[in-house]
Amino acid sequence: MFEVYPVLEKVRTQKPVVHHLTNWVTIYDCANVVKVFGASPVMAHAQEEAADMANIASALVLNIGTLTTEFIESMKIAAKSANIKGIPVILDVCGAGATKLRDDKCFELLNQVKINVIKGNASEIARIAGLEVHTKGVDSADVSGDLTTIAKNLSVKKNAVVVITGKQDIVTDGKAIYLINNGHPMMANIVGTGCMAASVIGTFCAVEKDLAKASAAGLVCYEVAAELAAAQSSGPGTFKEKFFDAIFNLDRATVEKMKKIGC
Amino acid sequence: MFEVYPVLEKVRTQKPVVHHLTNWVTIYDCANVVKVFGASPVMAHAQEEAADMANIASALVLNIGTLTTEFIESMKIAAKSANIKGIPVILDVCGAGATKLRDDKCFELLNQVKINVIKGNASEIARIAGLEVHTKGVDSADVSGDLTTIAKNLSVKKNAVVVITGKQDIVTDGKAIYLINNGHPMMANIVGTGCMAASVIGTFCAVEKDLAKASAAGLVCYEVAAELAAAQSSGPGTFKEKFFDAIFNLDRATVEKMKKIGC
Amino acid sequence: MFEVYPVLEKVRTQKPVVHHLTNWVTIYDCANVVKVFGASPVMAHAQEEAADMANIASALVLNIGTLTTEFIESMKIAAKSANIKGIPVILDVCGAGATKLRDDKCFELLNQVKINVIKGNASEIARIAGLEVHTKGVDSADVSGDLTTIAKNLSVKKNAVVVITGKQDIVTDGKAIYLINNGHPMMANIVGTGCMAASVIGTFCAVEKDLAKASAAGLVCYEVAAELAAAQSSGPGTFKEKFFDAIFNLDRATVEKMKKIGC
Repeated sequence: MFEVYPVLEKVRTQKPVVHHLTNWVTIYDCANVVKVFGASPVMAHAQEEAADMANIASALVLNIGTLTTEFIESMKIAAKSANIKGIPVILDVCGAGATKLRDDKCFELLNQVKINVIKGNASEIARIAGLEVHTKGVDSADVSGDLTTIAKNLSVKKNAVVVITGKQDIVTDGKAIYLINNGHPMMANIVGTGCMAASVIGTFCAVEKDLAKASAAGLVCYEVAAELAAAQSSGPGTFKEKFFDAIFNLDRATVEKMKKIGC
Repeated sequence: MFEVYPVLEKVRTQKPVVHHLTNWVTIYDCANVVKVFGASPVMAHAQEEAADMANIASALVLNIGTLTTEFIESMKIAAKSANIKGIPVILDVCGAGATKLRDDKCFELLNQVKINVIKGNASEIARIAGLEVHTKGVDSADVSGDLTTIAKNLSVKKNAVVVITGKQDIVTDGKAIYLINNGHPMMANIVGTGCMAASVIGTFCAVEKDLAKASAAGLVCYEVAAELAAAQSSGPGTFKEKFFDAIFNLDRATVEKMKKIGC
Repeated sequence: MFEVYPVLEKVRTQKPVVHHLTNWVTIYDCANVVKVFGASPVMAHAQEEAADMANIASALVLNIGTLTTEFIESMKIAAKSANIKGIPVILDVCGAGATKLRDDKCFELLNQVKINVIKGNASEIARIAGLEVHTKGVDSADVSGDLTTIAKNLSVKKNAVVVITGKQDIVTDGKAIYLINNGHPMMANIVGTGCMAASVIGTFCAVEKDLAKASAAGLVCYEVAAELAAAQSSGPGTFKEKFFDAIFNLDRATVEKMKKIGC
């Protein structure tokens, strides 16, 4: 399996600007996880500046968690700017399947701009792939069918990397498939681990052109840090702080030794 | 006094979806406290999806902390959907008394939709009850008059549970009165303990039909956890993280032993 | 050099209301740092109440981090109310230089309302002073020219206190110059230390009429606390919580012993 640490090292050396249009719930955590990884987050959603900001960034992360119609329009402006510049656009289809608005706006984005990485949990990606799912809000629901096949088909259809996060993460560009078995159950006990994962993917895609490899490398680093943090925590509150510490302190030996990634 | 833990147990078992339209200051903490209690928070405010999201939820929490006129319209849409479905609607009258807009919009909500639980600090509830109060922003001010009587009268008038949070919390449905003496002064040293209290009430009301009992049970659990956290903290920063840990780790013996609730 | 602690003592005794119109990324941290210093934060941006809220406050903090045109209009309304009442208005020119919208709106605010304290990092203040800068988002970029001179000239031109934060902070009202050498590199590893600095300045300006002295005193306290926190941290996650603890626990002896302030 490929070396993960060199991608992290590029993040820390290049300190890319990662532009976000994200939700109001976890916006701080999305910014902070980018910062703690050594990159430079920026959050800007005004329609008048979304294109300019995307133009000085190295990746764009879109997250529909607290979408409005107006906000989605800003996302399109930012994404078109990113498409022209040729920087990767990551879409977190947060809550897809929960309401018609979310589904409609995800499809609108996917149809009107180029999305390079589509990221969600199992039920969200299944919904985007056209399956019927019964979700309860933003947490994942059961999905019938093989997730790897769903991801691969969606990847080919949309010519995009597809990432399904969960106990095992699946990353595919339609050809290569990476299966990541790092992470810890404690991640499910705080809000924002999914949103932060999208920001991490954006951060790594900002420095590595192979976007499937970049996404996989980012998730491995993020989830190795979660394992380290969980071992030092007495609950979700202390876990979160130790999580940021662990990300910041990741070193080559730890990452390469602890990575659990297959294909 | 009633057993508190069984209500918490229902939260953890049923994992209800708790829909919020809340403020931008403490939105993360409101979501996280729901999650740490074992339930599933969702935040969605677009007018196009507010009704759909309320319809898949088991409780709806409204908090006017950073209100706008447009946002209040979304609240009405969500609340009407919740009223039709028959799920409880909790209104945190955050900052009532501070500006005319806040007062007007609280009264609008109370008149146009069914609110099941009205929650605020002493001066906020006094203002909603029609008294003159002199507030300084969102922190409570002195109120003349007996708080229990104020709460009870408002409860009868609006046919709603009324919750006044403070050193002693008062919960009443117009008949039963619960007085809760748990909690810790350190709670007043961080932003968001009031907002989170409303989210906790919403979470417990999602699983227990007796809304006064549910509100009281939620506050007891929340404030017992605060006491445990304060004992392990060196200031408000560490307090907050230990608070989430303590909520997550609450067990039956601790809750029942430490509860201080009278009527 | 002047005694710093008496200004902090006034914050803790008077508990001033500090009104904010700030960004959605760090809004919680801005509120919380004010609270932890012992004052009372309030965040309210609706055009219908921005003036009323400013009118019950003792200082107003404006931060353009996630600006929109509509939001800037609310800032003007709040600032005009603050100007009439005679309370200090602090403007954090967050991200100036990154997009045309940010520059335009900063200049609009500076021209249409009275700003008492202009605060930014080196490249942001340089941009506001009319220099060409090449920024990458919201993190500071290199600036050619002497920062003290840039600050002093801008201060005279706009008749305002100017604060440049960085390794060494520069505070000037055009006559007095304070150079603050407290702080810790760990502050740069989390999101929000710059935004919180503006909120701290607002908090101290709420109780001390000499706004340069107030700004300097606030920064000293804030950065002494950062030094104490860094010494107890294992990374940026724990640093942030220890930071809030340290602010809350600051005492006279520690502040006066550790302050590094020159002129």
